[in-house]
Amino acid sequence: MKVLLSGFDPFGGEEINPSWEVVRSLPDSLKGHILVKTQLPTAFGESFHNLNSLWDRENPDIVLAVGQAGGRSGLSVERVAINLDDGRIPDNRGRQPVDSPITEDGPDGYFSNLPVKAMVRASIEAGIPASLSFSAGTFVCNHIMYRILHRINTGDSKIKGGFIHVPFLPDQAAGKGDVPSMSFESMRTGLLAMVEAVIAGKPDLNVPMGRIC
Amino acid sequence: MKVLLSGFDPFGGEEINPSWEVVRSLPDSLKGHILVKTQLPTAFGESFHNLNSLWDRENPDIVLAVGQAGGRSGLSVERVAINLDDGRIPDNRGRQPVDSPITEDGPDGYFSNLPVKAMVRASIEAGIPASLSFSAGTFVCNHIMYRILHRINTGDSKIKGGFIHVPFLPDQAAGKGDVPSMSFESMRTGLLAMVEAVIAGKPDLNVPMGRIC
Amino acid sequence: MKVLLSGFDPFGGEEINPSWEVVRSLPDSLKGHILVKTQLPTAFGESFHNLNSLWDRENPDIVLAVGQAGGRSGLSVERVAINLDDGRIPDNRGRQPVDSPITEDGPDGYFSNLPVKAMVRASIEAGIPASLSFSAGTFVCNHIMYRILHRINTGDSKIKGGFIHVPFLPDQAAGKGDVPSMSFESMRTGLLAMVEAVIAGKPDLNVPMGRIC
Amino acid sequence: MKVLLSGFDPFGGEEINPSWEVVRSLPDSLKGHILVKTQLPTAFGESFHNLNSLWDRENPDIVLAVGQAGGRSGLSVERVAINLDDGRIPDNRGRQPVDSPITEDGPDGYFSNLPVKAMVRASIEAGIPASLSFSAGTFVCNHIMYRILHRINTGDSKIKGGFIHVPFLPDQAAGKGDVPSMSFESMRTGLLAMVEAVIAGKPDLNVPMGRIC
Repeated sequence: MKVLLSGFDPFGGEEINPSWEVVRSLPDSLKGHILVKTQLPTAFGESFHNLNSLWDRENPDIVLAVGQAGGRSGLSVERVAINLDDGRIPDNRGRQPVDSPITEDGPDGYFSNLPVKAMVRASIEAGIPASLSFSAGTFVCNHIMYRILHRINTGDSKIKGGFIHVPFLPDQAAGKGDVPSMSFESMRTGLLAMVEAVIAGKPDLNVPMGRIC
Repeated sequence: MKVLLSGFDPFGGEEINPSWEVVRSLPDSLKGHILVKTQLPTAFGESFHNLNSLWDRENPDIVLAVGQAGGRSGLSVERVAINLDDGRIPDNRGRQPVDSPITEDGPDGYFSNLPVKAMVRASIEAGIPASLSFSAGTFVCNHIMYRILHRINTGDSKIKGGFIHVPFLPDQAAGKGDVPSMSFESMRTGLLAMVEAVIAGKPDLNVPMGRIC
Repeated sequence: MKVLLSGFDPFGGEEINPSWEVVRSLPDSLKGHILVKTQLPTAFGESFHNLNSLWDRENPDIVLAVGQAGGRSGLSVERVAINLDDGRIPDNRGRQPVDSPITEDGPDGYFSNLPVKAMVRASIEAGIPASLSFSAGTFVCNHIMYRILHRINTGDSKIKGGFIHVPFLPDQAAGKGDVPSMSFESMRTGLLAMVEAVIAGKPDLNVPMGRIC
Repeated sequence: MKVLLSGFDPFGGEEINPSWEVVRSLPDSLKGHILVKTQLPTAFGESFHNLNSLWDRENPDIVLAVGQAGGRSGLSVERVAINLDDGRIPDNRGRQPVDSPITEDGPDGYFSNLPVKAMVRASIEAGIPASLSFSAGTFVCNHIMYRILHRINTGDSKIKGGFIHVPFLPDQAAGKGDVPSMSFESMRTGLLAMVEAVIAGKPDLNVPMGRIC
């Protein structure tokens, strides 16, 4: 199997984006499977344009994008992407869409078709805090997740796709006050455990991981 | 115009549900418009069954469900509902679905067609904390929001529908530790301001209210 | 008995300070006891100078200062004041002491001699969220609490004194994002319950209200 | 110089206490200075009894206790200890004092005489999140900090003493939900930076690190 993994470049005044740092650190092959890794710009259209070209070339079985969620405590596996760009800040190309659909003819939302609960469980069993998330926001992270799932749902239906958010690294959080962070090693361990769960084709868990509100 | 408003009965060990308390307190008419109010059981199928019957009878222009979101600080207007029941606790009939689609043939998500940002703004201008939310959870609140929007999207397309979450009342929060709450009067003021914005047919605002992640 | 109560004027860019609004709203007498109320400037030295003069004139039995703690969810009764001014922002006279002792010859800390747990309990029983706090900060609130207790501990030992923090009012929190607030009526109800507990001479409760860390 | 460092044994249902894990991992000497390390029981009296005996034997220049603060995001340097035991849970010997003074004839509070702001800064400069804290709670952590400072203030005035809280380790937080954590390596790096700042005799910083409330 081949897994296409992406991370983003730094945005929002940060000098580093942990999502790319951790993705780039993964090995090129894992238990006989190939990992293709790419850095995407934190930019609404361009990010998917670049990923899409690589997708065409590489013909992966799994497409997994990773992004930074500053302020969260653990890894979070996103369950759903929504058809909405609404930027609180401009992206790295200066674009700040407000209330714009990502794809005019797309549905309002798409669930990830990855075994999201099994991924959360795999990280926790590896000792790394993780949880399920029901909103990837409305910035570039949600944008690329939606477009990955739109391609899967409008053609590439055999491909599995989804999105994982990682917290700030410690030196990003240092000096920001009471902001949680996670070490690079912890992120890498958790992400690897999740990728292995996906590659192993683990069926999803039949346990509640929902939220009351 | 006619507005159909619902609140829920108490759940999760609470003796009161502020959503129904505040809905029941609204007047029967508002600036010449009719408000129909009903209490629904916090139960996955039955809640919508009851609302649906009333909807058939009353033929409303707007359907607005309200529910309790213990732990939130302000009113929150939900932007999207997802096709997923995943109960962390059983509902008031003892049912606890896990990873079940609400409607087998429905799409993964539906956006509210209410002017959600104008509603948030109306509450804030009335002095009541409010924000936009991108997840109504996976319990009965999300369930009924999804089913309202499914009916609208599969037939009743002229009707506007959505969902508002309210915090705990002060006496629910008292003794629970550091848990935010909102007074009944504040909830009522904010909810009225939102309903008036909807009735007035205010166009939605073109301002960013998104989240980065 | 006579109770001297103070609130502060607005600071930190706010147009109102709920502490004074709620204190000024209290009756002049309560079950035969006299309530004397005064507004103090949010200024390190001047606040206590003014309170001290009134204290001399009024000869109260109880001195209770109230201040705003924006961001907290409920009323909080402060257990301890420390001998430290350390302003993250300037006070209302432009003074911003850093690492300065309040009183050169004072001890590092003073406990309130009010029945702090009974006050918390009285508020909760009145339906208003309240908790015990172990830090009044290092701004003017802690300053005046320390100086009240310093006077009590260096002479006026029969007087009971302490400090209560109140959250933002709803219209202060509205528009600030996910910030808790409390209605004026709730604050007033909780504060009255606390003052009545103090006047009634309730012994303090022998129940744990500590924190692990 | 000689530094006496302590960590605690596990409590509150945990199987590990990061404070002892990180303290035990420190070298025996650091730039020519001696580090003496000991594990203390999470027990009100016994913890200081043991530390005190070692103190007598070792005659250290600096006494630094470290404890676990589950739920905090970064390292926190405690500024003040208070003369109060108030256990929300029993200690590891089953004792649960409520509202008990630690020392009948001691003052209400003691400031650490360490350069607390320089320690926070040293950790942040090493890339590890840290902040100043104004409450060490009312459990065994505050207890031992108070007793260290009481001994210093009633005799051993040339000795520097204080307390540092560390967050949960990742595998403690994993599965607990949205709870922050810090890796062992990050804790160790931050703690070393702080100890080096103390050994170097860095004067404290003259910058605001206070809290408004």
